[in-house]
Amino acid sequence: MTGNERDERNRHDSREKIGRDNESGDDSNWPNRNTLWAETFVDEFAKGGVSAVCIAPGSRSTPLTVAFADHPEIRIFSHLDERSAAFFALGRAKRTGEPTPVLSTSGTATANFHPAVIEANQARVPLLVLTADRPPELRDSGANQTVDQEKLYGSAVRFYRDLPEPAADGRKLRSLRVDAARALAASTGTPPGPVHLNFPFGKPLEPVPVSGDVPDGFEADEPLAATGRDGPFVGTELGQPHLDDAGLERVNEALEAEHGLVVAGPSTTLDPSSFAELASATGFPVLADPLSGLRYGSHLADLDVPVCGGYDSYLDANAVDDWPAPEAVLRVGASPTSKVLRNYLRDAVQESGTRQFVVDPAGEWREATFTASDLVIADPNRLARKLADRVGRLDSSASDAWCERFRTAEARYWDEIETAHDEQFFEGTVPGDVIADAPNPATVFVSNSMTVRDADRFGQPRDADLTVFGNRGASGIDGIVSSGLGAGSATDDPLVLVLGDLAYYHDMNGLLALVRCGVDATIVLVDNDGGGIFRMLPIAEFDPPFTEQFETPHGLDFAPTAELYGFEFVRADGRAAFRDAYRASLDATGTQVIEVEFDAETSHEFRETVHERASDALDE
Amino acid sequence: MTGNERDERNRHDSREKIGRDNESGDDSNWPNRNTLWAETFVDEFAKGGVSAVCIAPGSRSTPLTVAFADHPEIRIFSHLDERSAAFFALGRAKRTGEPTPVLSTSGTATANFHPAVIEANQARVPLLVLTADRPPELRDSGANQTVDQEKLYGSAVRFYRDLPEPAADGRKLRSLRVDAARALAASTGTPPGPVHLNFPFGKPLEPVPVSGDVPDGFEADEPLAATGRDGPFVGTELGQPHLDDAGLERVNEALEAEHGLVVAGPSTTLDPSSFAELASATGFPVLADPLSGLRYGSHLADLDVPVCGGYDSYLDANAVDDWPAPEAVLRVGASPTSKVLRNYLRDAVQESGTRQFVVDPAGEWREATFTASDLVIADPNRLARKLADRVGRLDSSASDAWCERFRTAEARYWDEIETAHDEQFFEGTVPGDVIADAPNPATVFVSNSMTVRDADRFGQPRDADLTVFGNRGASGIDGIVSSGLGAGSATDDPLVLVLGDLAYYHDMNGLLALVRCGVDATIVLVDNDGGGIFRMLPIAEFDPPFTEQFETPHGLDFAPTAELYGFEFVRADGRAAFRDAYRASLDATGTQVIEVEFDAETSHEFRETVHERASDALDE
Repeated sequence: MTGNERDERNRHDSREKIGRDNESGDDSNWPNRNTLWAETFVDEFAKGGVSAVCIAPGSRSTPLTVAFADHPEIRIFSHLDERSAAFFALGRAKRTGEPTPVLSTSGTATANFHPAVIEANQARVPLLVLTADRPPELRDSGANQTVDQEKLYGSAVRFYRDLPEPAADGRKLRSLRVDAARALAASTGTPPGPVHLNFPFGKPLEPVPVSGDVPDGFEADEPLAATGRDGPFVGTELGQPHLDDAGLERVNEALEAEHGLVVAGPSTTLDPSSFAELASATGFPVLADPLSGLRYGSHLADLDVPVCGGYDSYLDANAVDDWPAPEAVLRVGASPTSKVLRNYLRDAVQESGTRQFVVDPAGEWREATFTASDLVIADPNRLARKLADRVGRLDSSASDAWCERFRTAEARYWDEIETAHDEQFFEGTVPGDVIADAPNPATVFVSNSMTVRDADRFGQPRDADLTVFGNRGASGIDGIVSSGLGAGSATDDPLVLVLGDLAYYHDMNGLLALVRCGVDATIVLVDNDGGGIFRMLPIAEFDPPFTEQFETPHGLDFAPTAELYGFEFVRADGRAAFRDAYRASLDATGTQVIEVEFDAETSHEFRETVHERASDALDE
Repeated sequence: MTGNERDERNRHDSREKIGRDNESGDDSNWPNRNTLWAETFVDEFAKGGVSAVCIAPGSRSTPLTVAFADHPEIRIFSHLDERSAAFFALGRAKRTGEPTPVLSTSGTATANFHPAVIEANQARVPLLVLTADRPPELRDSGANQTVDQEKLYGSAVRFYRDLPEPAADGRKLRSLRVDAARALAASTGTPPGPVHLNFPFGKPLEPVPVSGDVPDGFEADEPLAATGRDGPFVGTELGQPHLDDAGLERVNEALEAEHGLVVAGPSTTLDPSSFAELASATGFPVLADPLSGLRYGSHLADLDVPVCGGYDSYLDANAVDDWPAPEAVLRVGASPTSKVLRNYLRDAVQESGTRQFVVDPAGEWREATFTASDLVIADPNRLARKLADRVGRLDSSASDAWCERFRTAEARYWDEIETAHDEQFFEGTVPGDVIADAPNPATVFVSNSMTVRDADRFGQPRDADLTVFGNRGASGIDGIVSSGLGAGSATDDPLVLVLGDLAYYHDMNGLLALVRCGVDATIVLVDNDGGGIFRMLPIAEFDPPFTEQFETPHGLDFAPTAELYGFEFVRADGRAAFRDAYRASLDATGTQVIEVEFDAETSHEFRETVHERASDALDE
């Protein structure tokens, strides 16, 4: 059964309200207060735009599970591991921008959400965490599955409520509707992020009639509380910070430079056309992180300034020493993946007094070298358009020459990379080919650790509608499978997930969503038997404990996971075989895991060789 | 390679200190301050009794990983999934009673520990959580893998320190030694539980020489800080609460009753001989939870009062209505697994004024019906012995008759159960047989959900040295595999782990420890394809959403997990086949997973039938 079929069945089954045989004899629409409470809440979420929920089975959460299942416009994704459930919701929320709830029962189940909550916080993803709880008198009483869920996620959430106990009470129900609206608004505020609502429920948890629980005539007496409004109970208009003319002019003055850069870090909200306008107006090359939303897209087609992806290699080449330093840098999004780029910016400021503007609508300081000179608290897309209107290229020949340096560097770099790939199939080839050969459009989810770094170095900018994502908030290797499949669940675009063996192992449980949530994917598994990334670090020189405690080769043969979760497992040996398998998978239905095995040391050495060659090519 | 071999290799390899080629020219024992800091800390942990650590690979934690690997007396268990790592450490700490550390890098890795931290809190297990962190200036700066780890586990830990940054400074190093001792003391205090130490580290993380980082002559100038003392830097003597004579006499008076009970809930610290003394002296039957430590053991051999395990069935039988109510109940350990027992105690208090003493050395209130009349804040083992010395059986004939009721009920109950098992092989047979046929001695780890309830009902008391464990703190189904294997890693006893399919799925990653940590186990997998326990709840009447959202049949065939993790997978059909496979596994080396498939509905119905029959038998 595909996810869509399942979805249809959900909807079909729930056309008749569950448990509405009100045998209590009361003239009420709700068998008991828990049903009233949960339906009211879900009603507000649906009216506020929630269209899907991830649910892990449990007893205490029954009222909410039933209310979600009962709602004709909400699709349910059922997960058995709460950690995977939360990452799936996160991936989906990231892909859609829609607040996406995840629901669990009480107890340790709630703590399994914690890694995804942290990622959602730092990656600014609207994850709505709903935890069921025992009623307050059972807290700290030794009652079963009762833990302290108050402020469970600490500072990682934008909004937290320990909700009151359900009651057929007008003010309480209106407060519930307001809290639902506030939670949605907070999750999509500035910055977006996770929220946590804790729901204490007493028994009965099921929609069984409880006489007097919801009084006769409740709906008539409390119409606003009982049925809400036609749309959301509280409409939310979200203002964004914008600079006034004086502020714009101050930034504008600094950007009237011959040599400037736009640097885009990971983000899901940057608007390519706004930044294309800005780049054209200023003549500033765009150094675009693969996760920035600016490296791939149709905005590249007619742009007369380069959008660059090879900077991680050439910005520390000797040749760059002779280049003029940028006078101004406008940085948007999170801190770039490329350490070379971060250090280049740091050194430019220190050595040449480059003015670096960090633009963030939330006013957070996302620049860990502490060299940036200006914080601009403004919506980056509107800022880009406003600056594009205002700024003029100072000296077109100097500006053109500056662009030309980057254009040439890019051209030489990518030539060198293509030669390298042809010469030796190594780990870095895979993310490069994944991106180069991805269909247009496609959603590509990139794991952390080496994968995203290789995507940064080897994922050439393309005029194609690729939505390239990663979990770059806290950069964990946990929850990658689920995040990718969650993103894929939200779109008809082909989904490609590229990840290493440790990330694959860490969230193998997430593979269950392929069948249960009806996601088709092409999963590219770069298997170098352990933590190859540690070879980049000085600890590699200390063995022991390097091999046993850092690289940790596990020797796992992942082929049996295909049997376990019902997909095709393909081993590809060599670049041609990999590209064939990749294209075949993209053309096929169902999920294929394409495993490519590498020796970490060989790949590591060749990566270094490629880096040197690319630098040399630029020096020529 | 077995765990022991691995262990030997660890020790052998590390006889020479890692990275001690001090090329900086400094006359110091430590290449840099991080090495000094981490070695100092690990030195204190080892001196304080830590003999094993679970480590998940990561970069930021390098100084501690290297220091642990470098220590000749600490065994390392390497895990790739932090969630499993923490549960493994928890299981080991539970089995040994020794504080057991788990170490991770910074970021979401730390949040993966959270479920186990909550379980350790509520099950009172000395889990030492060590998280590496970025240095303070990088917090909230957008730096990679930097999240807010301050007070990450909220109220769930006994002791928390955000440690200072490493420095070759006498006072700071002495404070580190004191904090290590305090952490150990807090984790084994009253009550025991988890502690959290957060370690900020700047670079270099590896033991590379940094000139001047540890000054020449540091050891001579600061001998106490640099080398500590011969034993622990701070010796800890832990006082336990004991009643004075007046307090003892007040309890004693209440216990001078003809009809009394000792009720033992889950605990790892109850001393069977102390409670055997108390039971003999008072003539009170002992209702012993399977996880109490009192249901199994040699103390049963000569005891003249019954130790009961069938109460979950017969205490709500009609026959019991005619029994006298207990006048006094002494309850120790956590809240019993049996709801029937909890309700029996609640009703006895409400209907007959039974005096219920809840004994807890930490003074926590672990009684969620709120009917108990007395809280006794005292060490239960010493209290039991003191009361045994003091109390006298009031009226031996009344007392004997009271015991006889329980003895007869037990005999009839277990006869009925054996007949039932012979008649139909159902889910409940499995934990019963697992315990009945377990070797003497053995460690048996029992999952939550139906498994522990079936162990409670069908695990007959035995005069055998069985250490029967479960995660009954928060009663989650997460981390069961790892907890069981962690317990098994600590003992040469045969290890049996019995669990359902959802628990098996949830922590499949934990199976990697079989090879990596060298644990041999017999794993009994009761597979009813989903959450059979939900059939016990009223929600079963509401389908949809019952099947899709609650029972959640997954259809997984777990046989491929054997190929993935390298063990034998045996499917047993029928009781004889199961018992054969079970005995064969116990005789074999290596790990066997014995899967027994059941239809949840059939088992559920037969469980009800057995319950009724057992009640009827007692009524006769």
